[in-house]
Amino acid sequence: MLNIVLVEPEIPNNTGNIGRLCVGTESRLHLVHPFGFVINDKNLKRSGLDYWIHLDVTEYQNVEEWITQIPDKSRVFLMSSHAEKSYLETEFQDGDWLVFGKESKGLSEDILAKFENHLKIPMSNLIRSFNIANSVAFIIGEAKRQIMLK
Amino acid sequence: MLNIVLVEPEIPNNTGNIGRLCVGTESRLHLVHPFGFVINDKNLKRSGLDYWIHLDVTEYQNVEEWITQIPDKSRVFLMSSHAEKSYLETEFQDGDWLVFGKESKGLSEDILAKFENHLKIPMSNLIRSFNIANSVAFIIGEAKRQIMLK
Repeated sequence: MLNIVLVEPEIPNNTGNIGRLCVGTESRLHLVHPFGFVINDKNLKRSGLDYWIHLDVTEYQNVEEWITQIPDKSRVFLMSSHAEKSYLETEFQDGDWLVFGKESKGLSEDILAKFENHLKIPMSNLIRSFNIANSVAFIIGEAKRQIMLK
Repeated sequence: MLNIVLVEPEIPNNTGNIGRLCVGTESRLHLVHPFGFVINDKNLKRSGLDYWIHLDVTEYQNVEEWITQIPDKSRVFLMSSHAEKSYLETEFQDGDWLVFGKESKGLSEDILAKFENHLKIPMSNLIRSFNIANSVAFIIGEAKRQIMLK
């Protein structure tokens, strides 16, 4: 089971789509506060997120709280457009933690300094980034493909 | 260069994100009318789709017009949740046409009957589908990975 981490997500529609990705791929979702929105029954119902009840999701008050909850020997990969290594050059394993920053700014320098494995998603220089849910789909798709082959 | 086809897209935000996927992966986008929205300068500006000017996009009045424009010997793959074959069991080539139906219903039986290659994206039975932009990301990610290795 993969662990998808969203640090300080800002846009509810993106988190909703990533929740759907996690339910559909049997991945765990970890959400680190503060958020740019409120998750409650009314908002989930309004957004048609009827799959949310099936989601294995954990919320953390801040980055420090999340980090203390990562099991020993877990592998943590941070997504960064400044990384040198592509996710396509990486061997993923079941149980890996795949970490995505906020939509507007990505992961902070402070968080990037805490873990050594940084990965980028190759893209043309005509865009600054992919939509975050699409970035999660690229990474989950490749990680699941590799794990399936093992 | 991959060819991404959206048949009768309904939700502008999804088409916007797929446009960004295409610019970022140097893919061509083909949009088959009718749409559930209007593409014009005002709407694109409002949605912050500043990359849209870089997009290689063609619009077609209907499915018949699109089909007449597919070059001979092109390989066409239709995405369908009812397909038996997974996209992970498929060998993709540069120039392939990858076709996605409308958000609410997918591709019609009529279109599915016109081409023999149908592909599914494996998912748990807890969701009915992935968001369409995420489905495109899964497929483009795998197709580009394979093409890069050739």
